[in-house]
Amino acid sequence: MDQAKNPDEKPSQPPVHSVLHETRTAENSATHLLPKLQALKELNPKLSLLDVGSGSGTISVSFAKLIPEGHVTGVDLNPNILPRARAVAEIAGVTNIEFQQGSIYKLPFADETFDVTFCHQVLIHIANPWDALCEMLRVTKRGGVVAAREGDYETECVWPEVSELQRFHKLMASLMSANGGAPTAGRQLLSWALKAGADRSQITLSFSSWSYTTPSERSVCAQGLCSPLRGGSLREKALKHGLGTEDDFEKMANAWEKWAKTEDASLAMLNGEILIQK
Amino acid sequence: MDQAKNPDEKPSQPPVHSVLHETRTAENSATHLLPKLQALKELNPKLSLLDVGSGSGTISVSFAKLIPEGHVTGVDLNPNILPRARAVAEIAGVTNIEFQQGSIYKLPFADETFDVTFCHQVLIHIANPWDALCEMLRVTKRGGVVAAREGDYETECVWPEVSELQRFHKLMASLMSANGGAPTAGRQLLSWALKAGADRSQITLSFSSWSYTTPSERSVCAQGLCSPLRGGSLREKALKHGLGTEDDFEKMANAWEKWAKTEDASLAMLNGEILIQK
Repeated sequence: MDQAKNPDEKPSQPPVHSVLHETRTAENSATHLLPKLQALKELNPKLSLLDVGSGSGTISVSFAKLIPEGHVTGVDLNPNILPRARAVAEIAGVTNIEFQQGSIYKLPFADETFDVTFCHQVLIHIANPWDALCEMLRVTKRGGVVAAREGDYETECVWPEVSELQRFHKLMASLMSANGGAPTAGRQLLSWALKAGADRSQITLSFSSWSYTTPSERSVCAQGLCSPLRGGSLREKALKHGLGTEDDFEKMANAWEKWAKTEDASLAMLNGEILIQK
Repeated sequence: MDQAKNPDEKPSQPPVHSVLHETRTAENSATHLLPKLQALKELNPKLSLLDVGSGSGTISVSFAKLIPEGHVTGVDLNPNILPRARAVAEIAGVTNIEFQQGSIYKLPFADETFDVTFCHQVLIHIANPWDALCEMLRVTKRGGVVAAREGDYETECVWPEVSELQRFHKLMASLMSANGGAPTAGRQLLSWALKAGADRSQITLSFSSWSYTTPSERSVCAQGLCSPLRGGSLREKALKHGLGTEDDFEKMANAWEKWAKTEDASLAMLNGEILIQK
């Protein structure tokens, strides 16, 4: 993006808390969907794809590149993230895309609008994920597919074992639960899809890993995890719920910074993945 | 295999406890090594590969198929498994392979014998995995590679949550530890490779998932897990160590059988993977 032409375009800078989120692409976060997407594209290159909870839009934009004759719609509950998503698309030179505000519980689209409806790390944070999947199925065409990928936070493994990092894990799981989410989302995805009314024969379940193993990956990871410990709404919520003190959070942030510089350090986690054929 | 010609060839039938192990192949259990193996093969089709802890030999045999002009040697501490491994090779029509008895701590080979030295779910069970990696490095040629893939048993996630299955998990972790193994092997692999003397710049660390999600996969998994609960050395050891009663083990086996028939059931686990460039 040409900054000279857009002196007020603040959202072209990634929000600090999004450093981690913006490493996500369709290629690294929707691998279970890619073969099906390719098959659908061969039948109809003008696919329409909905990315629910699109956030900074990096996954949506990579989907748009994969279906250049198709169209991607990104929806997020938070209207403040939409300018950043539009900037990400513009920087990538992608035009077959739009972003709008909307809730996963009440998507602003008619029945059977999209060929592919996708979400990533959304169901883990909400109280009634089966209702969300039901709504995703509603807006999907017959012959189309609903896909979701959600972390299983209880499988997170961090090395070396450091008490502050273990306390951070518990803090995040507590915050997730306090918000109505489920830290064991990954292993529950199939159960939720059945509760949403899908037949078992329509559903494919798989698991994949996500990890930070190299010094540069660890540095990005630590930045992304330190930021909410040192400021922002997550920290405020944790303080409000009595889940820790300012001193605790600073110790955790320091431990992540030390971890990033530790030669044998790594972090890995399982993700559950489903495809629901409609 | 022609049974008429081999009336006494009992090992051509898989040992009951090996049902799960025999689903393993290079393609599903050594994906992190395959690109490197292909690159080495392009330089020299006559690669020599060592599979340490080769067990029933299904991974070794699939390696042998991948390097038809090369040669695979499988080594296992347990001489009783060797006939089954040889039968697996014969049934597959693979001849560029041999199996022999040997310990990972003292491999019966000269320095720099193999282009590729591999192990799978071996280091997790032993007390000094860094010594084993050091020995694997010793028998590997300069320019070759040592590869290992080890489960991180503490990341295992089973759905639905059933108390008998949770108790089974604890039983297996206790047995692993009682034998000197480390249920968190996956996350420690990099640390062990460094302790074995490898430089960080030589090591690539990755993680992958292993799961049972379909009815037929769950059936195989439950069979494989019920068998040692109902007989054999693992059960004897658990009884001896006071880790449970016969009644406990039967309840666990029943819970696995019920789990196999549960529509939304699954089991998944992370594996750590390293490649060490020599």
